[in-house]
Amino acid sequence: MMAIGEIIAIGDELLVGEVMDTNSFELAGELYKAGFVVNRITVVGDEHQSIQDVLLSSLNKVDFIVLTGGLGPTWDDKTVKAVAEALNLPLKRNEEAYQHLKTCLAKRGKKFLPAHEKMALLPKGSQPIGLAFHACGFKLLYQGKHLYFLPGVPKQMSKILKNQVLPDLKTAFPSPSLIYKKTLRIFGLSESEVEEKVAELWTDFPEIKPSSLPCFPEVHLVLRSPQKKILNQVVDKIKDILGHDIFGEDTETMPQVVGKLLLKKGYKLATAESLTGGLIGHLITSVAGSSDYFDRGVITYSNQAKMEILGVPAEIIDTYGPVSKQTAKYMAAGVRHLAKSNVGLAVTGYAGPTGGPEAPVGTVFIALAKSEDGIEVSEYFFSGSREEIKMLTAMTALDKLRRYLIS
Amino acid sequence: MMAIGEIIAIGDELLVGEVMDTNSFELAGELYKAGFVVNRITVVGDEHQSIQDVLLSSLNKVDFIVLTGGLGPTWDDKTVKAVAEALNLPLKRNEEAYQHLKTCLAKRGKKFLPAHEKMALLPKGSQPIGLAFHACGFKLLYQGKHLYFLPGVPKQMSKILKNQVLPDLKTAFPSPSLIYKKTLRIFGLSESEVEEKVAELWTDFPEIKPSSLPCFPEVHLVLRSPQKKILNQVVDKIKDILGHDIFGEDTETMPQVVGKLLLKKGYKLATAESLTGGLIGHLITSVAGSSDYFDRGVITYSNQAKMEILGVPAEIIDTYGPVSKQTAKYMAAGVRHLAKSNVGLAVTGYAGPTGGPEAPVGTVFIALAKSEDGIEVSEYFFSGSREEIKMLTAMTALDKLRRYLIS
Repeated sequence: MMAIGEIIAIGDELLVGEVMDTNSFELAGELYKAGFVVNRITVVGDEHQSIQDVLLSSLNKVDFIVLTGGLGPTWDDKTVKAVAEALNLPLKRNEEAYQHLKTCLAKRGKKFLPAHEKMALLPKGSQPIGLAFHACGFKLLYQGKHLYFLPGVPKQMSKILKNQVLPDLKTAFPSPSLIYKKTLRIFGLSESEVEEKVAELWTDFPEIKPSSLPCFPEVHLVLRSPQKKILNQVVDKIKDILGHDIFGEDTETMPQVVGKLLLKKGYKLATAESLTGGLIGHLITSVAGSSDYFDRGVITYSNQAKMEILGVPAEIIDTYGPVSKQTAKYMAAGVRHLAKSNVGLAVTGYAGPTGGPEAPVGTVFIALAKSEDGIEVSEYFFSGSREEIKMLTAMTALDKLRRYLIS
Repeated sequence: MMAIGEIIAIGDELLVGEVMDTNSFELAGELYKAGFVVNRITVVGDEHQSIQDVLLSSLNKVDFIVLTGGLGPTWDDKTVKAVAEALNLPLKRNEEAYQHLKTCLAKRGKKFLPAHEKMALLPKGSQPIGLAFHACGFKLLYQGKHLYFLPGVPKQMSKILKNQVLPDLKTAFPSPSLIYKKTLRIFGLSESEVEEKVAELWTDFPEIKPSSLPCFPEVHLVLRSPQKKILNQVVDKIKDILGHDIFGEDTETMPQVVGKLLLKKGYKLATAESLTGGLIGHLITSVAGSSDYFDRGVITYSNQAKMEILGVPAEIIDTYGPVSKQTAKYMAAGVRHLAKSNVGLAVTGYAGPTGGPEAPVGTVFIALAKSEDGIEVSEYFFSGSREEIKMLTAMTALDKLRRYLIS
């Protein structure tokens, strides 16, 4: 039995271009992966009549509805009341939710405010969900339809979805159509370059549903099939074709992959950042346990800092400029020396909006010091906003390190 | 006259979590800014019946509809046929669109394929739009409703929206209801704490439409009103109540606000980061021109690095641990001294998943060195994921600096 559902997102902020509706995106993806079909996503504002209309118009077409938003304590949260009226159910204080809310607030040293009272009022017959995550959602079985009401805060929504809604739906609709999925994460090729290289496979394997997604600054190639064996076969073929341009699979991130490689080799890394301003260090330390291979980094934003901390000679900066192959080289060697690490990774460049006398905006040098004398420097020209150039630089630097570590 | 509309987005990829519906987000924002009201956004798949249903159910509630997606040449593009049938209009080849398509393809050295024929077939009465941008959309005036059909490719959609749809709507509905908006950005108070402090205003000023948005780790209070004077009045009242807990307005970010304050005082800042791993530096350097007040930072992840680069005494770390008031103090003083800056900002703590012998996960010390002896240290306990604790620490550090600079 294939269960069919709809997603409803509520919030004025979603209708005025203020907040992007990432909840519906995540819900659709997770439901799909679990084998459920979503026929429609509807976004309406915090408005009594709109909420009622969309709920009632969806109800008779579906097996389940997942609704997010408008459950909070504030004035503009109108979902619960609208739902209760639409379904003609009285609002009642739910003792479980009420006590839980009180305990949570007390634990965090917060007062129980009148605004919180409202959060424990649920339509009769509802069952609170999400309490384990300090969030307050609820579930309602109404005329055989499974209705889930989740908070709009993405993190809370996500936890309740994965821990309660999906298991609950799987119990209610026991044999959803399972679809196997593999994501290959690519760095260094554009979407069309990937497509060009692998396109012939799609005619050979019509069972595979491929989609290529630009996830800045990566490209993700997502493959789906109801047949696990064929999926694995195609994944192997693509790995042969793309080789090291694939840096990871599924949820693996670039810093995780680099971290694993450093650990495996027993290497320590040190970083010297100019234009990225700390972003490389931030990415590396996003991985738990990164202190095992990352000991220190420096953000040398000014010439003075490059000279004082890293020992870049003044005449090098004077002659070639701070954004140059030579400066990058001295930075990488300098930080490797400073940290007594196996590898030193350095970046210098112009993130914009303006460039410098020696190079235009988007010019970036990345240097990797592997030994006293073994220093590799490459030059890049990136385009995009300041934030994009910073991110492209940081990810390219990590990718350069990755390719060195697997070579 | 206030024109009311709906947005419809079409595409299977939007219902399976593969592609995020950024088009509706942009459309909603641009329409709102131009003074038009969007009541609903609906996303359906490339499915004949669904497209018809949503179009017909919207038609009688609106002045205009903007629909995106499903206009392309491939077999999964079903919008035009579904629309023609729903509105009971025959499909006819549009000569203008046809010739334009031919010319465009020829220019790019591409063949005119049978699949392209389809793109010039439009419902009778339609007027092609977007041709100047090598995109093919169309407009239809149907029973007094303004209907716009745009391609799903975001760049094409965006161009046609700004160059044709918005001007056309402004001509059709000459005096849109301008709604004034002010966003107050708050740091250091929870959503309910904000609500508690300002709630009484909502009864005094029913003309104001408030919404409070948790934008981790900030809270945004968004106020809307058709009357600018009343909006300003309420904004002033809220500023009186919340004071320095409001750090910025509208699109101002914390690093921008801190940067402006540093510039104004002519101060230089240096940072010493442990658990944040470079995130504070990354945030500071997200602002163009930050090199005017940010010269350097260090990421001292290990004890060794804290001692060697910042001169934290070994006995301090041995006695109190790396996550302690004392270590934070020496770090801030050390980096201020190293950079010869006016202020030194330092953080040390446990981002998780595990804590240390001296303190549990989430324990964070933030130190601000303002002079040789004037060092302020505060202790915090943050909860959340590793990424969240890093972000909370970085933002709290910047906020601490901000409050010092305005004091």
